[in-house]
This record gives sequence, structure tokens and C-alpha cells, in this order.
Amino acid sequence: MLINCVSYQNGVKLADLPVEEISDYLERTDCFVWVALRDATDAELEKMQEEFGLHDLAVEDAHHGHQRPKIEEYGDTLFLVMHLVEIVNSEMAVGEVSVFAGRNFILSVRNRSSQNFLGVRERCEREPELLQLGSGFVLYALMDAVVDRYFPVINDLESELESIEEHLFDKGAALTNIEQLYKLKRKVVVLKHAVLPLMEATGKLHGGRVPPVCATTQEYFRDVYDHLTRINATIDAIRDTITTAILVCQSTVSIEQNEVNKRLAAWAGAGIWGMNFQHMPELKLEYGYPLALLVIGAICGFLYYRFKRSGWL
Amino acid sequence: MLINCVSYQNGVKLADLPVEEISDYLERTDCFVWVALRDATDAELEKMQEEFGLHDLAVEDAHHGHQRPKIEEYGDTLFLVMHLVEIVNSEMAVGEVSVFAGRNFILSVRNRSSQNFLGVRERCEREPELLQLGSGFVLYALMDAVVDRYFPVINDLESELESIEEHLFDKGAALTNIEQLYKLKRKVVVLKHAVLPLMEATGKLHGGRVPPVCATTQEYFRDVYDHLTRINATIDAIRDTITTAILVCQSTVSIEQNEVNKRLAAWAGAGIWGMNFQHMPELKLEYGYPLALLVIGAICGFLYYRFKRSGWL
Amino acid sequence: MLINCVSYQNGVKLADLPVEEISDYLERTDCFVWVALRDATDAELEKMQEEFGLHDLAVEDAHHGHQRPKIEEYGDTLFLVMHLVEIVNSEMAVGEVSVFAGRNFILSVRNRSSQNFLGVRERCEREPELLQLGSGFVLYALMDAVVDRYFPVINDLESELESIEEHLFDKGAALTNIEQLYKLKRKVVVLKHAVLPLMEATGKLHGGRVPPVCATTQEYFRDVYDHLTRINATIDAIRDTITTAILVCQSTVSIEQNEVNKRLAAWAGAGIWGMNFQHMPELKLEYGYPLALLVIGAICGFLYYRFKRSGWL
Amino acid sequence: MLINCVSYQNGVKLADLPVEEISDYLERTDCFVWVALRDATDAELEKMQEEFGLHDLAVEDAHHGHQRPKIEEYGDTLFLVMHLVEIVNSEMAVGEVSVFAGRNFILSVRNRSSQNFLGVRERCEREPELLQLGSGFVLYALMDAVVDRYFPVINDLESELESIEEHLFDKGAALTNIEQLYKLKRKVVVLKHAVLPLMEATGKLHGGRVPPVCATTQEYFRDVYDHLTRINATIDAIRDTITTAILVCQSTVSIEQNEVNKRLAAWAGAGIWGMNFQHMPELKLEYGYPLALLVIGAICGFLYYRFKRSGWL
Amino acid sequence: MLINCVSYQNGVKLADLPVEEISDYLERTDCFVWVALRDATDAELEKMQEEFGLHDLAVEDAHHGHQRPKIEEYGDTLFLVMHLVEIVNSEMAVGEVSVFAGRNFILSVRNRSSQNFLGVRERCEREPELLQLGSGFVLYALMDAVVDRYFPVINDLESELESIEEHLFDKGAALTNIEQLYKLKRKVVVLKHAVLPLMEATGKLHGGRVPPVCATTQEYFRDVYDHLTRINATIDAIRDTITTAILVCQSTVSIEQNEVNKRLAAWAGAGIWGMNFQHMPELKLEYGYPLALLVIGAICGFLYYRFKRSGWL
Repeated sequence: MLINCVSYQNGVKLADLPVEEISDYLERTDCFVWVALRDATDAELEKMQEEFGLHDLAVEDAHHGHQRPKIEEYGDTLFLVMHLVEIVNSEMAVGEVSVFAGRNFILSVRNRSSQNFLGVRERCEREPELLQLGSGFVLYALMDAVVDRYFPVINDLESELESIEEHLFDKGAALTNIEQLYKLKRKVVVLKHAVLPLMEATGKLHGGRVPPVCATTQEYFRDVYDHLTRINATIDAIRDTITTAILVCQSTVSIEQNEVNKRLAAWAGAGIWGMNFQHMPELKLEYGYPLALLVIGAICGFLYYRFKRSGWL
Repeated sequence: MLINCVSYQNGVKLADLPVEEISDYLERTDCFVWVALRDATDAELEKMQEEFGLHDLAVEDAHHGHQRPKIEEYGDTLFLVMHLVEIVNSEMAVGEVSVFAGRNFILSVRNRSSQNFLGVRERCEREPELLQLGSGFVLYALMDAVVDRYFPVINDLESELESIEEHLFDKGAALTNIEQLYKLKRKVVVLKHAVLPLMEATGKLHGGRVPPVCATTQEYFRDVYDHLTRINATIDAIRDTITTAILVCQSTVSIEQNEVNKRLAAWAGAGIWGMNFQHMPELKLEYGYPLALLVIGAICGFLYYRFKRSGWL
Repeated sequence: MLINCVSYQNGVKLADLPVEEISDYLERTDCFVWVALRDATDAELEKMQEEFGLHDLAVEDAHHGHQRPKIEEYGDTLFLVMHLVEIVNSEMAVGEVSVFAGRNFILSVRNRSSQNFLGVRERCEREPELLQLGSGFVLYALMDAVVDRYFPVINDLESELESIEEHLFDKGAALTNIEQLYKLKRKVVVLKHAVLPLMEATGKLHGGRVPPVCATTQEYFRDVYDHLTRINATIDAIRDTITTAILVCQSTVSIEQNEVNKRLAAWAGAGIWGMNFQHMPELKLEYGYPLALLVIGAICGFLYYRFKRSGWL
Repeated sequence: MLINCVSYQNGVKLADLPVEEISDYLERTDCFVWVALRDATDAELEKMQEEFGLHDLAVEDAHHGHQRPKIEEYGDTLFLVMHLVEIVNSEMAVGEVSVFAGRNFILSVRNRSSQNFLGVRERCEREPELLQLGSGFVLYALMDAVVDRYFPVINDLESELESIEEHLFDKGAALTNIEQLYKLKRKVVVLKHAVLPLMEATGKLHGGRVPPVCATTQEYFRDVYDHLTRINATIDAIRDTITTAILVCQSTVSIEQNEVNKRLAAWAGAGIWGMNFQHMPELKLEYGYPLALLVIGAICGFLYYRFKRSGWL
Repeated sequence: MLINCVSYQNGVKLADLPVEEISDYLERTDCFVWVALRDATDAELEKMQEEFGLHDLAVEDAHHGHQRPKIEEYGDTLFLVMHLVEIVNSEMAVGEVSVFAGRNFILSVRNRSSQNFLGVRERCEREPELLQLGSGFVLYALMDAVVDRYFPVINDLESELESIEEHLFDKGAALTNIEQLYKLKRKVVVLKHAVLPLMEATGKLHGGRVPPVCATTQEYFRDVYDHLTRINATIDAIRDTITTAILVCQSTVSIEQNEVNKRLAAWAGAGIWGMNFQHMPELKLEYGYPLALLVIGAICGFLYYRFKRSGWL
């Protein structure tokens, strides 16, 4: 579905274009075209390929989706795939956006995601002095928007981890904790798959040899790269902590078991007075029974007290 | 066993050749020869070595098989080994295909696999404008076919993992889960051995200095590389998840044990009323026995309820 | 909040400047300006951006804070972010300082930290022969001050680890130990995030191609790099030891459990004499009961002795 | 002990030489000398050093042995150390061979190993067209022989692992399995130490800048490198599997324990009827006792059946 | 404390110098000065800095000590820090030696270590043909001496590991083993910190661009590098083995526990005959009691036998 198809000159919107005129505008050196598609059909993509002269392999990737995030050069054109990650009903939902960026055009194709980029276009149009940097700046603006949306996701994951940590040493909570940690780890892996490949690819858009589209906006791409590095480091820290936390859960289970066993040992004392020896004088005492109960209870209580003091409960 | 031996000119099939005429065609600069062998005998390979002028070491590798996936240059000729991985009766079956690619010839030798490449030839012949790119494109088409067949394998492994995950927190399923996770890991390792070395080798077929055979089709090889990277990342994620899942299984075993022990402790209460004190008034109560059973049952029930509530069953 | 704004010539303080005159001084080639801000407001930062001609992205980073430590070049200007790490009430407190270093100016912006850099300025002013090396030396002095403050933090972490280690094999201390190890690991991760990225960035300030600001003071930056490498190695060692220590704790829990179970088994002996066989001659012995107690006690004692001898208690 | 000392011309054996004449032959440009020593004495090595003009440090290494596998250049001479690994009585035996390879000589010194290289010399002499490639080819032939002997070792280790895996889920086999896995890991480490450094060193004998001795036989050294890469990958897979297998063993122990405890809980039922309540009507039933046994037995049987069905036994 | 201060010409000792004359000798191009200090005072170091013209930062490092091993260039002068590792009363003792190596001088400053380098000086003076290579050779001789002293340390650690391994599967030894493994790991980490950074630094003293001091003695530094690589590989192997061994200890604890529990289950049989059913004919048998004991004993014995057969005891 076509969302927008607009041409810009000197950072200012020129006109909404019918799709057929795109190639005409591309021949002009003084303006660039920015097209946005959503869940594009075969026909739409074919039309775009024709108008922009895109490479077969890239179009195929944009069409089939389920790509790894990546940045590829096809001649002068840059082809970029990013994952759109949201948390919907506490599940990760992963969409995809493919961007083709040429000297004087930007084509974005969004798949399986409710996140849109209308805000990006508006913000760009409000800053013509930046927008006139051309397609490189639009590419940056799109990347920046995608990456900025990773931050709330990672914050969600972090606070999920923290809420598990609060109950990490709670008695009897080990199973719930482990289950939640396992699910959390699965989510973290999904985010990692969105971030790490994109980070590696973005690292090639600044410093050293750079695709021509990005030449004038290197510092902006370094900024995106920097954000991705930060997210990636946080992801790694979360993963590491999850592993340690599972280990800790295992230990608390064993320690709890120890306590149960010790109390079991106390009850075993009752066996003493169940022996059938003929000469067991305490059995004849009037208060022998309550005393025995007291002794058993006292031992249990003492173990419980020591256990509690050592920080468990 | 010889399967095909065909010469092509400008992307169009010229003729089926007898093996002896291969070297004659190789002298012509305007056409190329595409030969396919299957489980080749010594004599066939010797004949091919003679006709194509192949290097001793490469022929030896193609003959003995059981190589690591790799890409090697012998002068102008590229020698490529790939693993063919299938799941047959839920076991991994690993075959091998060796490909020799020269300026104007392609020779593929397939070993121990039922997967064939007839489809690749048909598809190539249907697209003469691509086939006329020469042996580089045929090499790509073969690699693409092999790599595409890894995707269903990895999907199988992923859904196997998911079906284990569904029962991960089931009571009493730990042993079965661990056994299945262990077997799954073994399969994943087999696939990893097929994918990782091929990925590393393919990375050298695009960007920077590239073997002459691949020079005009670099973008295609980048596409193959990209697929391999994706598969490889998925494999790593599966491995990581398996390790965590085994850890989780271990924990569920311990937690289940805790529950059993606690109920054991409840039963131990029966020992109290087995003591032989003379003054134990409740023993004389008419409903002492059923009351005692009730108490024990109530404790067990309470533990069971708390356990259930905490998410286990 | 503006803390200082001073111009220097030949390593000697020239004058305290009003903020508005900064740009005038920057035009002079014979002196440099050193400005220090703390928890700067929007207006202050805007003013500084105007006076020094700073890049949008860098100013934005300095303003929002919560950056990863990094060093970035914007044209001739170096932009540096460092974490200020303190232990306050045995919790890690992380502040941030951003430094802009140009040919003839230094601007530092400190956020969320009580650590100040007055001492750095004083020391620099006492050594005019070094201070006349210019903004590069001031940059070094600031980095050196930040990094030097990591050492007491890491010493704290190390002695915390050592005090846990002292109780590592104490009976019943496993839970406390694991909890403390877990918390310690969390702190170590925070420090790691401050040190590792800074170390990697600092590695680019000496040897090979170096930003012009640092050209004359490379050996000093190598010294900072060296300190960071040392801290980083210590952090890695602590992390590794923590993991092993948690493993050890798990083991001690299991071993303690073994001991409890063995003593439980001894008590089970009492069950023998609770059997109702008619011919159990020892039951009729006058001293049967105390003898039985003695036997049970002796076994428990023996187990306890063997356990103690093996180094536990 | 001197084993052989032969000069070759154009790939054909010229003469058995007395050691003293070596230096005379080295001056001739048209032939090369191939000397083999075994457990050489000080005097023999000194003599060799004199005749071939070898470097002090290399001779010292060859003499003392217990080196890490390595390849070093001393001027034009290549010095190579390889480990000879055999399995003797199911223990790893590690010998060593040092090779000095110059423009027109090869000197091999074998230590602490029963493996000899007579077969290598015979095979070389049978292929004069290859042998006339000179000392580079002999070096390759020696390396190839050493590396080929790693394959049976790794096959042994793999089948050892497989035979452990067959019993991995056997009841009561955990201890034996763990012990065997531990020993297997130790052996794998020994092989790893022979293979990995040699692989790294061999990687420098082909592609890019190459020592002159190996210049004409690069493709052969790539073949050796390829074999070493394959062995190394297999070693890593074995190591990884061993770690997982130990984890699995730990789990089976816990699961088995769970079963024992559950049955213990069943027996605890007997405690019920050991209570001394006066009104326990079932105690007076004629068939109360066998019924009670039946109930206990039935519970045990049911647990056993469920356990067996879940795949254990 | 000054130990030696000697000038050498053509590899032969010229004279013992008073400290004040050092700078005079440094101006002569035909000789070099070798000075050794031990636990130097501030005054001594200041004097040396003056005589040799050393860099502030390096002198500071030599003075404060507790540096990471490293090699730094200050202009023409090389500054080297190495750790001196000894085992004193089965504890690791870490001293430090700093070496300044210029074109025609060597200054070594040793701190907190009883190891001295008199032997190095003697050996050098006995080999004037090597000593005349100049300060580079002395530097090598010092490094070689330090590194050679790592070998006995690592041998100690290895035999400590082996002596633990002998008892790895001993019954009841788990706690002692884990404690010893933990301590061993701590020692290994200390050695690792001495070796790894030095290895990395030494790798830059041969091949490619090399500091002028080392130019003529590259092959010697490669030899030192090779030794360090060997030590480092052994350290890594020990670390890996320790981790596995702790895992194994954990498993043996669990297995032992299993055995105890099974025997506990056997004793639980006694509960059967403690039931108060009226019709339990075996209770009236004359030999019922001894028979019951026999049955219990037999089961225990059988379990013990099976356990022993499986290799434990």
C-alpha cells in the first residue's frame, strides 16, 4: 500500500507525485523523491523496481522479508533492512522495514508492523536546512527513528529483570523466577538479533570508506552507531545477569531443601520414643509426651530461627 | 556416474557432449561446459582431471570426500566443497558436493546424497540472460540451491526446540526433555559444521580481491553469504537456548524434589503418635485416628496447593 | 551552573572571563580557555554551543547524559564522555562528565555527581611548564583524575570479594554468600561499563593516527590507557572469581545436605527397635535403651568427626 | 642416532653421505641433502649445527624438546616443531619431531616416539617429479605424515565419546560416565595442544608473504592447513559435547534421586499404621496387614511404571 | 639500594662506576652502562632520572610499582615492567622488576622480591661475543631470566592439580577438593596476570616494526615470546581443567547422596514391622527379628556392592 510519494527541492516539499512520474523526477539533479510503502504487493514492488531501477536481489529481499538486519550496496544504491521491535501484550513483535537509498531518492517498505514513520517525515519537513542534505539525511532520520524505538523495549526488559530480582531470594519463588528468566532470555535474544547485525553494518557508514549516499552525514550515522553500541552493551549485561540469576535460583532451591531435610531430621527424633525397650523411664513420666513434643518443636524452631537470621525469609 | 555433460553458448544450451570432447570445447572462448557427476568412480574422476586439467590435491579431496566445507583457488580454477544436509527419519544425513569452477567450465561431483541439482540446471536454462554470465553464475546457482536447502533443516530444528519448550516446565518431563535437548544439540552441531566454514569461505567471494570466476557475479555471492550469516546466527541462538533449557531442566528436578521432601516431612508427623509414652490423651479419643489422618492430609494438601499456585502443574 | 571560566597563556592564568568574551579569546592563537560547568541548564549549554561553535549532536549528548563512555571527533573538536563512579552507602553511584576539547579550549560539563575537578585545575596551575602544552594536557589531567577515582572503587570491590571468600566454606553461610556475590557482580558490571568503552576509546589517542588535540601529549594518554587496561583486567578477574565462587557455594550446600542425610540415616536405626517382633531379646535388657541411644549417638558423632576432619567446620 | 643421510639430485637419490661431507654438498646448487636423526645426542646435534650452520636457539629447542608446536624462520632456514601423538594402551603418548628446512637441505630430529618417517622417504623417492621440487616438498611430506597420524587419534576419541553416549542415560552409570568424560577431556586437551598451534603456524605457509622454502609448494601447505582446520573443528565439537554430557550426567543423578525419594515417601506410609491410637479399626482386620503391604507395593509399582514409561530404564 | 653500576666495552667489563659518572659514559658511543637497583629510594630514582634522562611517567611507574606487565617506548628508551612470581610457603608472592633500556644503557629496578639477577650478569660476562650486541642483549637476558622462573611455578601448579585429580573420585573428598581447586584457581589467575600482558607486549619486539634497542636481537625476543606463549597455553589448560573438575566434584557429591538415600530407603523397611496390625504372623516367629535384620542388611549390602562395582570406592 502506497503511503506517501513526495518530491523535495532544497529541503522543501515540492509536490505529491503519482508513482508514474518518479523516474522523471529522478533525472532532475536538483531534487529528490521520498516514497513510503507498507506491506507492498508484488505489483507495487515491481512498479518501484522499474521506476527506481532497483536490483533483483534487493527487491526480492524486501518482498519476502524475514531478513537479517543488513546494509548492502548495489552500485550507488544502498539497501538497508531493519527490524521493528515492539512489545505487544508482553510478547515481542518483530516487523521489518527495508529502505532503498539512492543519490536522489529514498524508498521505504514497511512489513508486519504497526509502527509508522509519519513523524519522521513531519520532523524532517520542519527542518529544511537539514533535509536539504538530501537522501543521506532522510536515511539517518529513518534509522534514528527505528533505533530510538529500541530504547523503550530495552527499558521494559530491564525493569522486567529488576522485578524478578526483587523476588530472587524469596522462599518458594524459584520455579516462577526460573520460568520468567527463561522467557525474558528468549525476548532478549530477539532484540539482540535486531540490534547486533544492524550495529555491525552501521559501523561501516562512518569513518574510512563510506557509501556516497552517507558521505555528507557521517557524523549522524556515528551517532546512530553509538546508540546501537549502547543498546548492545545493555543487552549483553542483561543476558549475563540472567544466566547468573538462574544459577542463583538453583542454589536457593538446594538451600531450601537443606532446611526441609534438617527439620525432617528433627521429627526423626520421635522414632526414639517409639522404640519398644522395656526400660524407658521417660515414657512413664506424666508430662513425658508434652516434653517430647517440646523438644522436637524447640529443635525445629531453633533451625528456623537460624535460617531466618541468615537472611532467607 | 555421469549425469549431464552439456556445453552452453550465450546462455543457451549448445549440445550434450561426449566426455572426450570436453577439452576441445574448453579451447573455444565463446562457450562453457557444465558437467555433473554423482558418486563418481576413480576412472571417471581421472578422465575429468585429464579433460579439465585439475589439480591432484583437489581431485583427491573430491574423491575421498568427508572434507570440511571450503573454497580453494588452484590457479584460475576454484574448488568448492559443500555439505548437503537433510533430515531423514529425524536423523541428520550429510552428503557432499564438490564443485570445480574454471573460466569456462563447471564440474560438480555429488557424493552420498539423494538431493540432486536438476532443478538448478532447468532454472538456469530458463534464464539465458543470467546464464550467459558464465560459470560464475552457475557456481552461484549451485551454492544458492545448497544453502536454500539448509532453511527447512533449521526450521525443523527450531520447531523441535519449540516442542520441547512447551513441556519444559511439565512435572516429571525433565529426563525426556534433557535427552531430547541433548540429541537436538548434536544435530545442531552437524549443521553448524556445514554452515560456518562455508560462510567464512563465501565471505571471500565478494568485496575486496575476488577470484576471477566470481568477478561479475559478486552481488549474488554476497546474497549467498547473507543467507549463510542468517542461518549461522539462528544456529547460535538455538545452541544458546538449548544450554539454558538444560539448566532449567536441572532446576525443575530440584524443585520437584523439594516438594516430595516436604510431603515426606508431613508423613513423618505420624511418628509422633507412634511414640510409646503412657500419657498421650489423644490416642484414646474415639476419633483420634481419623483426625490424625486429616491433619497429615491437610498439610500435604496445603503444600500441594501452594506448589500448584506457584505455577508448576 | 558555571563553576569556572578562565583563560591561560603560556601555562599561566590570564583572567577569569565572563562567558560572553569566550569567543573573543578563542580567536587569539596564543592562549586557551578552560570552562567548567555542572548540571548545566539548557540556556547555559546553548550559550556554550554558540561561543565554542559545538556540534548539535555532541551538545545533545552532553545535555541528555546517560551516554556510554566514548570519544568522538567533530572536525577539530574532540568530544569525550566519561562515567564518574563512586560507592555511596555501599551502592554504586554513576555520574557523568562530558568534555569538549578544541585547539585552544576545554569545556567540561559534569552531571549527577558530587566529585569535582577543582583539584585538577589547582594542580595544573602549579605546573605551568606542563599546562603550556595546552588543551591536550588539560584533557589528560581530567581523564587521569577520573580514572584515578576508579582505583578506590575497584579496591572496595576486591576487599568485598575477599571478605566473602573468608566465609566461603563456612557452614550455613551459602545463602548469604550467594546473595552478596550476586550483588557484587551487579556492581562489577556497572564499573565494567564505565571502564571498557573508555579504554577502547583511549587506545586511539596514542600511536598511529591521533586527533590533533592529543598530538603533543600522546605519552600521557598512553599512561591513562595503561591504567584503564589494568583496571579492566582486575574487573575481569573479579567477575571470573565470582562465577567460580557461586559454583563453590552450590557445592557446599550439597555437601552439607549429604551430612544431614547421613545423620538422618543414623536416626533411622531407631526404627529397628520399634519393630513389634515378639522375640527381640535386647528389648528386655535393663540397659537396652541407653545402649541404643549410645549406638545412635556414636554413629552421629563419628560422621560429625569425619566431616569436621575433612575441613568443613 | 643417525637414521639416514642422503643427497638427492633432480628428485633422484644420489648417494648415502657420511655426515662430514654434508657441508660440501650444501655448496652445490643442483642437489639437496635429507638427514634424519632420532633421539639425537649432544654430539650429533653439535655436528649437525656445524655442518648446516644452524642457529643456537633452534638447536637448543630441538635438543631440549617439550616445545610448543611452532614454525620459526632463522634467516633462510625454517625451523618447525610438531607433536607426534599416539594412543598407547588407551593413554596419549606425545613425542616430538623438529625439522630444519633450508634452501637445499632437510634435517629432521625425532624425540620420544616410536613413529618413524621411513614411509615418507620411500614415497618421495617413488615420485621423483614431485621430489625435485626440493626441500619444500620434503617438508610438506613430513608435515602431511604427522598430520595424517592425528586422524586415527581423533577417530579413537570420537568413538570413545560415542560409547560413553550410549550409556549416558543408563541408570546408575553416572559416576562411570563422568569419570570417563573427564579422562576423555584430558586427552582431547593434549591433542588440542598439538593441533591448534601447528594450525596457526601452518596458516602462514600459504597465501601472502611466504618463507622462500615453501614458495613453490604453497598449495600443498594449504592442504595441510586444511586438514589441521578440520581436526581442530572436530576437537572443539568433542569438547563442547563433553561439557554438555557432564551436565546431562548431573541431571540424571538428580532425577534418579527424585525417584528414590518418592519411593521413600511411599514406605513412610507404614508409619500411619504404627501409630498407637486405640481406635484404628483396620488394624483388627484379618487381612489388614497384607492389604497394607499391597497398598505400599502398589504405590511403589505405580511410581516405577511412570518412571519407566518416561524413558529412563 | 644500588647493587651494581658497571660500564662495558665490546662485551667486556670496563669499570665499576660511581653513580655520578654515568652521564659521562653515556656520551661515549663505544660502551654501555648496566645499573641494577633494588627497592630504590626516592633519592636514588631521582638521581637515575637525572643521569639517564628518563621520562617522568616511567620513573613514577617504577617507583610506585604495582603496575601491569608492559613494554612502553619513550623516545629511544624502552620501559619494561615484569612480575617476579615465586611460590613461598605454597602462597604466590609477586614482586616486580622495571627495566629502562636505552641505546647504551640498561637500568633495572627490582621491588618486593628476593629473586636477584646476579646470575644473569655473570652469564653475560662469560659470553662477551653476545654481550657486545649491547643493551638489547642484556634486556633479553633479563627477560629470559624472569620468564624462566615462571616454569617452576607452573610446574608446581600442574603437580598441585594432578595431586587433586588423584583424589577427585574419592568418597567424601569433595569438600577438600573444591577448596583446593578454588585456591589453585586463584593462584593461576595471579600467574596469568603476570604472563598474558607480558606475552602480548613481547610480541611487538620481533617481526614488523621493532624498537631500535631490540633490532639486532629480534630472534632472541621471539624465543622469549615463544616461552611465554607456551606458559600461557598451559595456564589456560589448567584453568579449563579446574572448572571441569569442580563440576565433577559437584556430581560426585550428588551421586554419594543418592547412595545414602537408597540405604535410608532400606532402613525404612523396618517401619513395616512396626505397624500395629493384629495379624502379622511373622512377628511371632522365633527368628523373625534376626531374619528382618538380615533382609535389611542384605539390601544395604547389595546396594553397597553395586555402588562399589560401578567404580566409586
